[in-house]
Amino acid sequence: MLKVAVLGASGYTGGELLRLLGLHPKVKLVAATSEQSAGESVDTAFPNLTGRLSLTLEPLNLDRLIDRADLFFLALPHTTAMPVASRLIAKKKRVIDLSADFRLKDPKTYKTWYKTPHLDTALLSRACYGLPELHRREIQSARLVANPGCYPTGALLGLLPLFAKSRVDHDSIIIDAKSGVSGAGRSPAQATHFPEANEAVSAYNIGRHRHLPEIEQELSGLAGKKISVTFSPHLVPVNRGILSTVYVRPKKPIETAEAVELFQDYYKEEPFVHVLPPGEFPNTRNVQGSNDCHIGLVADRHGDRKAATLVIVTAIDNLVKGAAGQAIQNMNLMMGYDESLGLTAPGLFP
Amino acid sequence: MLKVAVLGASGYTGGELLRLLGLHPKVKLVAATSEQSAGESVDTAFPNLTGRLSLTLEPLNLDRLIDRADLFFLALPHTTAMPVASRLIAKKKRVIDLSADFRLKDPKTYKTWYKTPHLDTALLSRACYGLPELHRREIQSARLVANPGCYPTGALLGLLPLFAKSRVDHDSIIIDAKSGVSGAGRSPAQATHFPEANEAVSAYNIGRHRHLPEIEQELSGLAGKKISVTFSPHLVPVNRGILSTVYVRPKKPIETAEAVELFQDYYKEEPFVHVLPPGEFPNTRNVQGSNDCHIGLVADRHGDRKAATLVIVTAIDNLVKGAAGQAIQNMNLMMGYDESLGLTAPGLFP
Amino acid sequence: MLKVAVLGASGYTGGELLRLLGLHPKVKLVAATSEQSAGESVDTAFPNLTGRLSLTLEPLNLDRLIDRADLFFLALPHTTAMPVASRLIAKKKRVIDLSADFRLKDPKTYKTWYKTPHLDTALLSRACYGLPELHRREIQSARLVANPGCYPTGALLGLLPLFAKSRVDHDSIIIDAKSGVSGAGRSPAQATHFPEANEAVSAYNIGRHRHLPEIEQELSGLAGKKISVTFSPHLVPVNRGILSTVYVRPKKPIETAEAVELFQDYYKEEPFVHVLPPGEFPNTRNVQGSNDCHIGLVADRHGDRKAATLVIVTAIDNLVKGAAGQAIQNMNLMMGYDESLGLTAPGLFP
Amino acid sequence: MLKVAVLGASGYTGGELLRLLGLHPKVKLVAATSEQSAGESVDTAFPNLTGRLSLTLEPLNLDRLIDRADLFFLALPHTTAMPVASRLIAKKKRVIDLSADFRLKDPKTYKTWYKTPHLDTALLSRACYGLPELHRREIQSARLVANPGCYPTGALLGLLPLFAKSRVDHDSIIIDAKSGVSGAGRSPAQATHFPEANEAVSAYNIGRHRHLPEIEQELSGLAGKKISVTFSPHLVPVNRGILSTVYVRPKKPIETAEAVELFQDYYKEEPFVHVLPPGEFPNTRNVQGSNDCHIGLVADRHGDRKAATLVIVTAIDNLVKGAAGQAIQNMNLMMGYDESLGLTAPGLFP
Repeated sequence: MLKVAVLGASGYTGGELLRLLGLHPKVKLVAATSEQSAGESVDTAFPNLTGRLSLTLEPLNLDRLIDRADLFFLALPHTTAMPVASRLIAKKKRVIDLSADFRLKDPKTYKTWYKTPHLDTALLSRACYGLPELHRREIQSARLVANPGCYPTGALLGLLPLFAKSRVDHDSIIIDAKSGVSGAGRSPAQATHFPEANEAVSAYNIGRHRHLPEIEQELSGLAGKKISVTFSPHLVPVNRGILSTVYVRPKKPIETAEAVELFQDYYKEEPFVHVLPPGEFPNTRNVQGSNDCHIGLVADRHGDRKAATLVIVTAIDNLVKGAAGQAIQNMNLMMGYDESLGLTAPGLFP
Repeated sequence: MLKVAVLGASGYTGGELLRLLGLHPKVKLVAATSEQSAGESVDTAFPNLTGRLSLTLEPLNLDRLIDRADLFFLALPHTTAMPVASRLIAKKKRVIDLSADFRLKDPKTYKTWYKTPHLDTALLSRACYGLPELHRREIQSARLVANPGCYPTGALLGLLPLFAKSRVDHDSIIIDAKSGVSGAGRSPAQATHFPEANEAVSAYNIGRHRHLPEIEQELSGLAGKKISVTFSPHLVPVNRGILSTVYVRPKKPIETAEAVELFQDYYKEEPFVHVLPPGEFPNTRNVQGSNDCHIGLVADRHGDRKAATLVIVTAIDNLVKGAAGQAIQNMNLMMGYDESLGLTAPGLFP
Repeated sequence: MLKVAVLGASGYTGGELLRLLGLHPKVKLVAATSEQSAGESVDTAFPNLTGRLSLTLEPLNLDRLIDRADLFFLALPHTTAMPVASRLIAKKKRVIDLSADFRLKDPKTYKTWYKTPHLDTALLSRACYGLPELHRREIQSARLVANPGCYPTGALLGLLPLFAKSRVDHDSIIIDAKSGVSGAGRSPAQATHFPEANEAVSAYNIGRHRHLPEIEQELSGLAGKKISVTFSPHLVPVNRGILSTVYVRPKKPIETAEAVELFQDYYKEEPFVHVLPPGEFPNTRNVQGSNDCHIGLVADRHGDRKAATLVIVTAIDNLVKGAAGQAIQNMNLMMGYDESLGLTAPGLFP
Repeated sequence: MLKVAVLGASGYTGGELLRLLGLHPKVKLVAATSEQSAGESVDTAFPNLTGRLSLTLEPLNLDRLIDRADLFFLALPHTTAMPVASRLIAKKKRVIDLSADFRLKDPKTYKTWYKTPHLDTALLSRACYGLPELHRREIQSARLVANPGCYPTGALLGLLPLFAKSRVDHDSIIIDAKSGVSGAGRSPAQATHFPEANEAVSAYNIGRHRHLPEIEQELSGLAGKKISVTFSPHLVPVNRGILSTVYVRPKKPIETAEAVELFQDYYKEEPFVHVLPPGEFPNTRNVQGSNDCHIGLVADRHGDRKAATLVIVTAIDNLVKGAAGQAIQNMNLMMGYDESLGLTAPGLFP
């Protein structure tokens, strides 16, 4: 059994790690930390775990923790994960960091978006961006995996096959993403106060969301040149789920059937990505609680337009494929386990 | 007092007409029809009207109805409004048709999208598309107003100022719209069954929604040439509201402040359109129950792109500005009343 | 025109007062205060008022305010309304206090439940409990009206007719109330954070909610002896509405039809209370945004029980009949206006 | 591996059986039937199963089905399960019936509530009411288990300890239950149409819901005499969950701590029932997707009342502990497996 610890366990991502790790047959959860809830039982913080997991949250004291586990999930706030990861890696531990601290390869970009210099650029250069559908091989040998943001996961899975086949006008990419409210984290705030987030649909941070540079970094890597995209996040009144509607202009005309086939072919070995038949579109409801990503496509060629717009819609659960589930998928890869081990429970419907 | 009747009053649009007409100081509601609920009190169909409106729903018998009112709102199903409008107009009545039957100027387009030939092309050519912000003058003298669809209202209000000033690359327009479930009508169906529509976000009918030709018709009229757009409707779990996120490529670079100013200037005399300051985006929650349209804009010029994408976000209540409220606004114009008469009650918050 | 001011206008009750006062034909709103939002436009705090109400929130400075208005609505936090009311009344102003500060007639009860001594017991003894259906006459001549809590309004309206006719076993009363989340106020908190209040139904504060002594005080006044009730508040994921399910044991057997008739008779002159026919039950959805109270009843006599349980279900909008609407109803009574002036707009459906 | 079939698999209960059976290590699902979706893949009916379960829905043809499985779950409509169960039992199969057809021991009661005579009273007399916390031993040796209704499960779990200890005034029981909308089934209807069930709280069928005789039958069995209760079902806008607030008058005074202890003691060996410490109440959110039942209690003794009211609040997921999960728990008991096998995955939070 692999001994794992979850550092920063009292937020939604941490709670989801606790829920999913309990389903994993090769993992023993040895510790979970929380500053604000230290001393409490995990089921006080997460009442769904009542009777299912017995563990007391403890403060984050690395001296006491470091020898107890072999792999650490960091669900700590951005900027605070850096020093923790440095120490753990120095002690030959494996680390999966769910914060943004090791996602952006260029320390200048990190500083621009997170307003603080990166503290360990040497380690940053060794970190692997943990999107298995893109970097599976690197993840398998990585010691430190930077788990992708929820929005980038949904957006990138809608673009990978097109970039792999060079089918896209790089200057045309628009990502219109709709996220459930758990994506905003567990701390109460006015915009996420029930009466104000309920019965409400809104856009926010268009063109300046922190997940934007992540998306652009990975697309640029694929294209071999700098890619800029338009990224519009929206808040919708559901607990879980991101629906990403991605608009691209193909380099040469493409029909829906061909686009679907291209995607199905690209993802045919993937355990969690399901491409729907032509005419069907995904629904966040169908992936809630699961690590799945559903994708639907249509080439919109109505009217007299020279080129179609290709519209790709992806649906994920932001807390699972967009966070904790993908982290466990990365753990499976790092440890040489079957990639879907512990992750095959279907989502809830309805 | 103007005597009005609502034909087809048992759906959500009909109910909203009843609610709003009750607030209008110059209107007397003399009749409301419903085939399925004929003989019932209106407050059986709409319990919110209990004690507020005493009226019995009656079958649609034009012989009995035609002399009782001077202006008729048709909230009938598509294809059934045509013959009713023809008769009413023949008897010199004023008609505001909330169905799609008189929105599409070209009978061929109507037949393509509604699968039935138009029955009165002569009358069709005299009908006025009832978007006051675009056709105010024609509406004032019209006998038959075709009240716009909910999606076209939200989309067009986000594009009018740009077309007026010829600022848009006509080949670049993408409209990503998120609608509340009342937009799907009052008849129960699997996709709108509570457990399946709740906690769910999905796309549907991308590139083939019936509101698409309406949007393109009006934009084409403005541009003086045929315009095609990409239109992606989505369903989100709120009762009311459409948030339309519109993406366009400006002909020449534009900054956010300039774009906001252009919109504020264009809409400065409009009683119902409010352009938000730079950095703010609308929320459907803020217009629920009101005839308002809130608009926010940003010119996304991050990165190295040659041209910015201009993103315009509009929020309306699909049942008010997107249907019944706009119909009453049109009535005010046709009758020479103050345009906002009976329509100034603020929406509910929260 | 009556000049009114709203003190403490940035919460949900304050916002609802602003919305409703704007619909009132005899009122001029001259000032609205908020400590935290002083200097802001009201439409920043309440974006639904954009373009509908132009007013700047100001700090609560009585010296500057007192001469500008004739009637003051206090939507201030509990314990802070007392000194303000004292000063206003001393200056011969009319006051409607929406806090709890003048609801409990016995200063000891006030201290027990609000943990602070009452500061003006002389004024307290002159305050009138503002439930028009119970104290209409006193309200008409009152200078200070204590506007009832939302739960007491829903519960008392379900019990008044039975107490008036002495039909109830006083020891049998159980009130199971389900409230929308706006009842918890506008300040963000963990329990009302969207992801934790959404898809959630829970009980809280059973037998120890601050609205309990209010309910018991008014029932005791009617019965002429001390009444205790079981009161169980619940939180349900809607923005607005309280459904109160009230269980009583009748002194002598009663049938549903007789019970309905008793209620209909009792409330026949009431402008806002609607008793539904036998077999129908109210739905909070049907009163959202309106000052109405819908009531349904059934005498449950199945089985072999000696006595039926009489079940009364009432529905109100907690922010309207449960707060701001009732306050305006009280204003109408105090000023000699028609009682329903400005309050007849139907609620939203759906 | 135990071969099982699900008959009537296209509703919510059927879908939940499919989801949960896939998590069970000793079960092989060999067939699932649906008349309306015969020929379709299960993931068409339940898109959450995409990539997780490969099975084609087939028509209910017992000749073809009967030899393929050893245990059958019947998720068929009431009245249609009877003949199917008869044939299966005649062929020595094990049957767990999730319809109401074998719950009511007295055929006259069945006829009264389901408007049709019972077709197999001999078999009815051998059926076991499948509430493990009450009839564990009988279930272990049963061939036919009648899986309890969702409301009875929540209500009875709140009353068993009190009846076991004879602590309750039998004439005092009131059950106020709040159910999520999936409890109404998967067929679309006006009352469960999203815009009408959303933002809505209502009572229905007070004193005449079909689950009432089930509750009374089991309580009567415990008491050794006929028990009648007041049962008020309510509909609340969540997908899953029943919160049951149960009011009883204790025979002799009881304090909260003692009541909690009594419950904790009674349920101490139960794998799925968790009694919360004094002062805490359950939330349906904490059990969604799990087979757990959370219970909180308070003895309300405020005021001068002679006797306290004891308030017990229970929370279950209506589709799991209230249907499919409990059915699998019963299967585990019938087969001699560990009772919680396949049922220990925690629910989703948030």
